[in-house]
Amino acid sequence: MTRPLIHVPNPAFDLVFDRIVDVPKELVWKAWTIPEQVKQWFTPAPWKTVDCEIDLRPGGAFRTTMESPEGKQFPNVGCYLEVVENEKLAWTNALEPGYRPTTSLAACPGEEFLFTAVISLEAHGSGTKYTAMAIHQTQAGRARHEAMGFRDGWGAALDQLVAMVKARRQL
Amino acid sequence: MTRPLIHVPNPAFDLVFDRIVDVPKELVWKAWTIPEQVKQWFTPAPWKTVDCEIDLRPGGAFRTTMESPEGKQFPNVGCYLEVVENEKLAWTNALEPGYRPTTSLAACPGEEFLFTAVISLEAHGSGTKYTAMAIHQTQAGRARHEAMGFRDGWGAALDQLVAMVKARRQL
Repeated sequence: MTRPLIHVPNPAFDLVFDRIVDVPKELVWKAWTIPEQVKQWFTPAPWKTVDCEIDLRPGGAFRTTMESPEGKQFPNVGCYLEVVENEKLAWTNALEPGYRPTTSLAACPGEEFLFTAVISLEAHGSGTKYTAMAIHQTQAGRARHEAMGFRDGWGAALDQLVAMVKARRQL
Repeated sequence: MTRPLIHVPNPAFDLVFDRIVDVPKELVWKAWTIPEQVKQWFTPAPWKTVDCEIDLRPGGAFRTTMESPEGKQFPNVGCYLEVVENEKLAWTNALEPGYRPTTSLAACPGEEFLFTAVISLEAHGSGTKYTAMAIHQTQAGRARHEAMGFRDGWGAALDQLVAMVKARRQL
């Protein structure tokens, strides 16, 4: 196998969120890759993730349906790009499952919200260095994602993930 | 590792070219993945491939520059999605290297020419069953690719590939 790609963020286009968490990376990986777990933490409350489908392989589907406090549902679909157990998970909404380029109108300049997400996990003592990178199509896409509350949103979701992992350990 | 994705073509969106060739798949793989070899066969004559850059890993760059008989150059860039030695090579022009969704205007409906290509190689006696699949964003994209001469073009390029492999064996 060739050496894996190192993702170097471009500050004008990309958003990076990282944090050390005190749960092991193997459990963070499960939280990201088992639908029943994803539904418990993925969307900052009071929003919910009411459905999740995961076909965990390159080209496979990553589908989620978020629900607003008012009950409106927002389905999302992405395509996994890299699946390296306990280390790296990458997917994009620029491709549909099976790698078909998306037909979403979001592909048009001015309306874009296409991005690739890369989650990287590294052991850090008994915990995990957690890094989430959002790689946008355009600077406008980055700005829009940031204005939507990227950092607070990913932080709140990660808080929920860690709380879920700890609660499951006590079962 | 999970089972690999089986690509089932959708006839309305996809184009498939397959053929049995009498050279082993390991040499077809080299022809696709070594820049100096790609330049020798990739573009049906009298067009030429005058430059080629390959970063052979998921997320890596696949760049080619084609030159028309009049000397006009056409650069192309794609991003590798799957690299399974001697078996499967997939890339897309919907993502730039590093998985950034493309900013090409071609992403807009009506102008689209985004697609993912999947080359599959299977041993067939001492030769290879060669399958190339082009997975388009839209039915219009498929129609445009077909009208550009997909079948003749990929066939002529494969003829050149096989001729190159045979010539190299005789060196």
